[in-house]
Amino acid sequence: MLAAPKISSFNPPRRILMGPGPSDVYPEVLAAQSKPTIGHLDPLFVAMMDELKALIQYAFQTENAMTLAVSAPGSAGMETCFVNLVEAGEKVIVCRNGVFGERMRQNVERVGATPVMVDNPWGEPVNVDDVEAALKAHPDAKFLAFVHAETSTGALSDAKQLCALAQQHDCLTIVDAVTSLGGVELKVDEWGIDAIYSGSQKCLSCVPGISPVSFSPKAVAKLAARTTPVQSWFLDQSLVMGYWSGDQATGGKRSYHHTAPVNALYALHESLRLLAEEGLENAWQRHAQMHQELRQGLTELGLDFVVDEQSRLPQLNAVYIPEGVDDAAVRSELLNRYNLEIGAGLGALAGKAWRIGLMGFGARRENVALCLKALQDVLK
Amino acid sequence: MLAAPKISSFNPPRRILMGPGPSDVYPEVLAAQSKPTIGHLDPLFVAMMDELKALIQYAFQTENAMTLAVSAPGSAGMETCFVNLVEAGEKVIVCRNGVFGERMRQNVERVGATPVMVDNPWGEPVNVDDVEAALKAHPDAKFLAFVHAETSTGALSDAKQLCALAQQHDCLTIVDAVTSLGGVELKVDEWGIDAIYSGSQKCLSCVPGISPVSFSPKAVAKLAARTTPVQSWFLDQSLVMGYWSGDQATGGKRSYHHTAPVNALYALHESLRLLAEEGLENAWQRHAQMHQELRQGLTELGLDFVVDEQSRLPQLNAVYIPEGVDDAAVRSELLNRYNLEIGAGLGALAGKAWRIGLMGFGARRENVALCLKALQDVLK
Repeated sequence: MLAAPKISSFNPPRRILMGPGPSDVYPEVLAAQSKPTIGHLDPLFVAMMDELKALIQYAFQTENAMTLAVSAPGSAGMETCFVNLVEAGEKVIVCRNGVFGERMRQNVERVGATPVMVDNPWGEPVNVDDVEAALKAHPDAKFLAFVHAETSTGALSDAKQLCALAQQHDCLTIVDAVTSLGGVELKVDEWGIDAIYSGSQKCLSCVPGISPVSFSPKAVAKLAARTTPVQSWFLDQSLVMGYWSGDQATGGKRSYHHTAPVNALYALHESLRLLAEEGLENAWQRHAQMHQELRQGLTELGLDFVVDEQSRLPQLNAVYIPEGVDDAAVRSELLNRYNLEIGAGLGALAGKAWRIGLMGFGARRENVALCLKALQDVLK
Repeated sequence: MLAAPKISSFNPPRRILMGPGPSDVYPEVLAAQSKPTIGHLDPLFVAMMDELKALIQYAFQTENAMTLAVSAPGSAGMETCFVNLVEAGEKVIVCRNGVFGERMRQNVERVGATPVMVDNPWGEPVNVDDVEAALKAHPDAKFLAFVHAETSTGALSDAKQLCALAQQHDCLTIVDAVTSLGGVELKVDEWGIDAIYSGSQKCLSCVPGISPVSFSPKAVAKLAARTTPVQSWFLDQSLVMGYWSGDQATGGKRSYHHTAPVNALYALHESLRLLAEEGLENAWQRHAQMHQELRQGLTELGLDFVVDEQSRLPQLNAVYIPEGVDDAAVRSELLNRYNLEIGAGLGALAGKAWRIGLMGFGARRENVALCLKALQDVLK
């Protein structure tokens, strides 16, 4: 027998999470998550799932029947959309203005489909004219895929206009709302989004690990019309829905697919309940307000934003690291002296920018004040 | 705007979970899980991940460097093994003696490989002679895949002997240890298992949603020698290991892949720490002992086991429903009157058997006593 390692219980410090996510989790959510585990087929649990579905529908502003939480992080939510909807040989127009557009491309390739890339510089929103040109140049494209709020740069793209364009060209839309959901305006039905995914750990201020997803009736029809099986068993929504909504073949009885992450779903239920209690528009307004206060302070500190004002995300503030300043040293000092986490740059912005998150429960004045004062002290 | 649903916080009852999983979660694990969320790249979090890796290695009894927790349930752990190791066109011998062998077949087909099925009746262990015959008949097979402990029937297969056979025939082994890990003897290195996955929610008594996985050096070499990309981006272990162990290209620096389910990993760390503290052999012994006490009581109640004594899992006791007894009514009464959950039959045993779990923290004398008395009362 290999010997048992001698390891103590882990006691994490109390950080203030102002990076690109995970964000500070609501205390109520941590409490909800530690309630007693019950079975994933317990009648009380499946009733909770019905409520959870209604809460996800509200957050997405959709009446889509196929609305649920994927039992894995946002990256799996992304993959859920691509593997269920896109078939080998199909063409997908993919907008890339940061890390997550590139990840979409990799997803398209891994299902054996053909990505047509629309590239925009990092820090800029997706260029609507370029997308229109691509749609015209590729009339055989079946999908338009883009990131609503690019977490790697802090740029917000015009999802409404992009979806309208896609509809004109008979394309279904696949939209990354990982960082946008709960932080900025997002209206799935009104804008005509066909497939959308998000994450629990950004503006919902839930624990990381779960991905809300919704498919429009058109997306469901595309899934139903597949001629090949979905390449992922775990993410196959035609199977998963047998658990989330009941199986028509069994008279609506819920069928076992995989064991749901029971406690994580308690947490998501509570975080979305808090969002519904605050009201979506109030939450959007709060994020905008806190962003203005942070922006003013950062500007006074002489820090420049990566993204132009009109496309700037309130919840993800990317600022250039001043010349001569040691990126890692500053972040370490913030973490070690103030228990404050801000995010490093990612991809093309690695070493060049910091990413300061104001997400969900984290979008509060006390956080803004702490962040500004700590940065001021450390940059002195 | 669609209106916000009026929904209250969810307050689950305190159940006693004696089904096929999730099992009763250790109170210490629920407490660990609700500790403050910190960043997935926080130096203290990555140090915790190193401990977690050592704890998973201990539980599996392996020194495999590629040992980690997949950020999703056991079904995703299964898919991780198949999509990383098996390539299109390859042949996989799959043993099927319950639901999960069938799920393995579906995984093999979805990577475009060819399953060769070795079927055994439900309730029986995998037949070693049949496997040997299949290995001889298919010298071009690259893998042998089987379920160590079939959760759908309660049958334990001889993993040691099956792995020895596979090695004689130059096959890599893929082993489902979802229900076996922590409940019965399992020695990955000594038995020569090449790829193994488990779940958090069975004999580890952790919250559901995470899957410990380990690949042998031979499996890692097979992954490295792939000529095609892994079809899942989310489960691609060549990418995931950049986060879990650091990227050699960046001098060992951990690279972002996806946001880890931070709090769920706190929970897994604590549950495996409790297992290490008890000691694997003591835990195996406790499961065996509690099973004997339950078995005696069930036999006194006139209930017959589905599985023969020599292949019976201590942690999953499948018994036939007596003739004339209403399956659903009994389970409802146990749940509503005693807060006791036992499992329904699955697949071929649906409506014919109950599955009584004695897993991890649930394998305690007080649970055995409660279950026997409640069953006695309800069956009266």
